[in-house]
Amino acid sequence: METLTVPTCRHATIQIATTHPTQFIDLTDRLERFVTDAGLRFGILNIQTLHTTTAVVVNEHEPLLLTDFQALLEAAAPGEGRYRHDDTTARTVNLTDGERPNGHAHCRALLLPTSACINVARRQLQLGRWQRVFLVELDGPRERGISVVALGEGGQ
Amino acid sequence: METLTVPTCRHATIQIATTHPTQFIDLTDRLERFVTDAGLRFGILNIQTLHTTTAVVVNEHEPLLLTDFQALLEAAAPGEGRYRHDDTTARTVNLTDGERPNGHAHCRALLLPTSACINVARRQLQLGRWQRVFLVELDGPRERGISVVALGEGGQ
Amino acid sequence: METLTVPTCRHATIQIATTHPTQFIDLTDRLERFVTDAGLRFGILNIQTLHTTTAVVVNEHEPLLLTDFQALLEAAAPGEGRYRHDDTTARTVNLTDGERPNGHAHCRALLLPTSACINVARRQLQLGRWQRVFLVELDGPRERGISVVALGEGGQ
Repeated sequence: METLTVPTCRHATIQIATTHPTQFIDLTDRLERFVTDAGLRFGILNIQTLHTTTAVVVNEHEPLLLTDFQALLEAAAPGEGRYRHDDTTARTVNLTDGERPNGHAHCRALLLPTSACINVARRQLQLGRWQRVFLVELDGPRERGISVVALGEGGQ
Repeated sequence: METLTVPTCRHATIQIATTHPTQFIDLTDRLERFVTDAGLRFGILNIQTLHTTTAVVVNEHEPLLLTDFQALLEAAAPGEGRYRHDDTTARTVNLTDGERPNGHAHCRALLLPTSACINVARRQLQLGRWQRVFLVELDGPRERGISVVALGEGGQ
Repeated sequence: METLTVPTCRHATIQIATTHPTQFIDLTDRLERFVTDAGLRFGILNIQTLHTTTAVVVNEHEPLLLTDFQALLEAAAPGEGRYRHDDTTARTVNLTDGERPNGHAHCRALLLPTSACINVARRQLQLGRWQRVFLVELDGPRERGISVVALGEGGQ
């Protein structure tokens, strides 16, 4: 429907070193730069974590609200709860050296999204006034990777 | 793989005036019209809310079930619970005139998706027999916007 | 940005016969084959369930962890809880022969994603070391369908 458009697909991996057991890292500014660099005019940006004890969520960046979120996750899957995943005497699969007791973090991750798919229009990420995109660390501190794909139509 | 296909990308914003504090608004009919109007044959439709106290979910449109969902959200993040986000004496960030005590709504939104990505094949949204797409209002009544992108291949 | 790339869009439906009331079925191997067969080099794979009492999640395939997930879902929406959706004397909508009391399954589905959107780069699904993609059966055993779309750029 546009003149001089070209199909556009660009991929990158973002590396993040988290610093706390639970942490919300605001990725929005670097995602906006990625969309600009990719030359995407209309389409989607898919932001996907590469880990099973993290998540990608969209909500408001207000520090006290982030503590409310942490309390909500603690209530849903308590850090001191009992998880069969943490019973290394019973486990037979995927055991590694330095296995962390992180059943709570997997359970919290199950309740949150692995990815966020955000629309792009007129070269802008379509985020409402209060929306920010966060990587959620649930078992930090760790080195983490996030895969991003910008897909749609570009051109001048 | 198809003859006479053309890359297709179409964006629109849907405006909705919600009428209740918690409300499930069925968007399916207008989403199907959007896919038809966009001329999309195969691809995806990404439906994304532009707000941090709403969500986009896919489930059955059965009125009593929607009251079950409301009870589930009330149990997960009670409307009468205490949220630090609602403590305007402690807040230093993002305070606005007419700030609403809506920590519960943000917490409920955290547990629900910001977007739904639905497949399109043979010009049809791929929804199962009982699947409907809803905007979920969690802090209404409000004016709300939903961004939609249809992306894939079109043509006659 | 690539030479000899072609826009690519491929759709398929995967049929699964589940065998338990709650079950996590690992779809990853067949999804990887689908991406290979589609010839997708860069883009996304959207995996979407066609049912309202199932979900698609990404997490670790460790059997004891899957029992933790089942316990989490049971705590969030107990199988023995009371759901208005199951009150066939009050229901007026969507009633079918052999209606199953499955309000708990719908509620669990509300807390989990209907779809997962996974990035593809250099012909590979971008999954971290422990990430696997599961269909989650919440009201089995049943015949289930999953719609998949591979979208992006292909070519040799």
